[in-house]
Amino acid sequence: MLRFAVEATDSRTAARAGRLTTAHGDVETPVFMPVGTQAAVRAMSPDQVAATGARIVLANTYHLTLRPGERLVAKAGGLHKFMGWSGPILTDSGGFQVFSLPSAEIEADGVRFKSEVDGSELFLSPERAIEIQHALGADIIMAFDECTPYPAKHTLARRGVQNTLRWLERCVAAHGDHPSALFPIVQGSTYMDLRHECAEQIVQRFDTPGYAIGGVSVGEGIDLLKQIVGYVAPLLPEDKPRYLMGVGLPEDLFESVERGIDMFDCVIPTRYARSATLFTRRGRIRMTQRRYRNDFYPIDVSCDCYACTSFTRAYVHHLYVANEILGTILGAIHNVSFYIRMMADMRAAILAGDFPSFKNDFLSSYQS
Amino acid sequence: MLRFAVEATDSRTAARAGRLTTAHGDVETPVFMPVGTQAAVRAMSPDQVAATGARIVLANTYHLTLRPGERLVAKAGGLHKFMGWSGPILTDSGGFQVFSLPSAEIEADGVRFKSEVDGSELFLSPERAIEIQHALGADIIMAFDECTPYPAKHTLARRGVQNTLRWLERCVAAHGDHPSALFPIVQGSTYMDLRHECAEQIVQRFDTPGYAIGGVSVGEGIDLLKQIVGYVAPLLPEDKPRYLMGVGLPEDLFESVERGIDMFDCVIPTRYARSATLFTRRGRIRMTQRRYRNDFYPIDVSCDCYACTSFTRAYVHHLYVANEILGTILGAIHNVSFYIRMMADMRAAILAGDFPSFKNDFLSSYQS
Repeated sequence: MLRFAVEATDSRTAARAGRLTTAHGDVETPVFMPVGTQAAVRAMSPDQVAATGARIVLANTYHLTLRPGERLVAKAGGLHKFMGWSGPILTDSGGFQVFSLPSAEIEADGVRFKSEVDGSELFLSPERAIEIQHALGADIIMAFDECTPYPAKHTLARRGVQNTLRWLERCVAAHGDHPSALFPIVQGSTYMDLRHECAEQIVQRFDTPGYAIGGVSVGEGIDLLKQIVGYVAPLLPEDKPRYLMGVGLPEDLFESVERGIDMFDCVIPTRYARSATLFTRRGRIRMTQRRYRNDFYPIDVSCDCYACTSFTRAYVHHLYVANEILGTILGAIHNVSFYIRMMADMRAAILAGDFPSFKNDFLSSYQS
Repeated sequence: MLRFAVEATDSRTAARAGRLTTAHGDVETPVFMPVGTQAAVRAMSPDQVAATGARIVLANTYHLTLRPGERLVAKAGGLHKFMGWSGPILTDSGGFQVFSLPSAEIEADGVRFKSEVDGSELFLSPERAIEIQHALGADIIMAFDECTPYPAKHTLARRGVQNTLRWLERCVAAHGDHPSALFPIVQGSTYMDLRHECAEQIVQRFDTPGYAIGGVSVGEGIDLLKQIVGYVAPLLPEDKPRYLMGVGLPEDLFESVERGIDMFDCVIPTRYARSATLFTRRGRIRMTQRRYRNDFYPIDVSCDCYACTSFTRAYVHHLYVANEILGTILGAIHNVSFYIRMMADMRAAILAGDFPSFKNDFLSSYQS
């Protein structure tokens, strides 16, 4: 089972440093979790992921039930063994994905949709989402929720909260005493009354090993994100990990850690790597720009990742321009390393009692 | 400068085990050199290439002069530093590539062609090919030759030999006392009289640190390949390394080692990996086939590479079917490892005085 301990709390903000203990090892928080949607972090081998310092990765219930199917993964000995990742794994519930499908039809019991792989009709319900996740065997699994799109009318967001709460009850029942940790998800779009109701209901009714905030990173922007996180995080138990789903850019992570978030996942580092957008301490750079052709500095001078210690921008520029897969590989290694180190630096600053100074230093030199 | 020592010769065949000594380290022969056309072995990082046991890699003069340009590579400190490969590197001369371009016009002094990158008109001559290769800074560089296509009339093959010999003289003059090792290339298509003339002229007139056989792997098939190699190899000095260019499949390598070849390069391991064709001790397999969906054995049970020790066929099948880049990465790691180990096993058999038995054992279980 999952355990969590808060090790330090910033004196001036809600930022905290903690430790997640799982059957597959410890994770220091705040933590960034690279996304391995289809049981693979895009363009990286598991040893390359581990070399970035990443300790926990995400995989996607929706994608994995379509292909290769959770029964195959179970037969392989579970997701850890299947994908060659010995550290902790978190699976999302698939709710976010199926709600964004054009074929999705929301019913009282769940969502009906068509497979993107073979067009077959499928149905995802709270019970089914839990069943799939149990078969996959992740350390942390997510409740099946209704993720409201942005912008949404209050009535639609309200229905999302109602379905999320109703389905959560069924997720908890289906989960039983399974050893994995089930996290409920707070919805409510940008409406603080709905966020309040959802968080309060969840916390009052369910004593789970952790809590998530969903329905963000859907286009609401950093100001609304700060408002939602700043409002919801204090409603969640202090002694449990708080996971902000699908967020985000470096500035989003700083603002959210400051407001008490412990866990993050996002496809940005690996997705941006595929389009040659790499992170540096001074902001993002587009490696395909001609100015990098003759640039013999590393991608980021302050970075100690394999890409930065072994190659120049000129070489990485060449790889991207020449369509060499190694460009994307090195970009992914660097971007994930950048995120992991940024979180480790945040943690060190919290432990040193100095988070706001570190945040100001970082963001004043980082051009977003 | 390059040195070569024959360490053992098979009693029943011309197979030999040797050692190349370069400024960037030793290479045991017979050796397979992975191809890094654009200064990157496709889908592999240099540390992954090194982990396969590969000790020397190839890069392509034609591709690198087009992009990023040899001046940039020189400014970066040379090819080793640019591509992050500290072992020896061999560059081909670009002759093979330009002769296969539709725009190629062969003139007395060289070949005029249009850049595939930006359409600009370019000219490659013996002097220019040497100049580019000196700028790139490889340990072993190749003479600029005329590679005759297959099939070719005797008159065309004869012109190829004449140009190759004439241009070789100019390559040697342009090379001067440069510390890299310049290898001439024996042409002559499938005509033994032309092969004989070309090899004899080269050996009589030029005392170079090694000799190559070109104009093979152009569609002539294994029987003609065996005939050419069996005919030409004995005409080359025994105390110098013999390099068979662009060859080939495992069975081709066995036949050629048996006939006295020491060095090989081929895009097959990395190219096949991109189309999910992987090598095993029982022959090639197509990882996308449905039969591998439930196969929890490694790609090749006898292989100790990262892909085979960490993942199952079921996982690699999933990666290829789901279009995950990691599929190609693991496939490339495995295929290159397969080739490197196969060559190391050939060497061990030669040192043990037992090459024909090993060849028979290997090929009797390997379905080509």
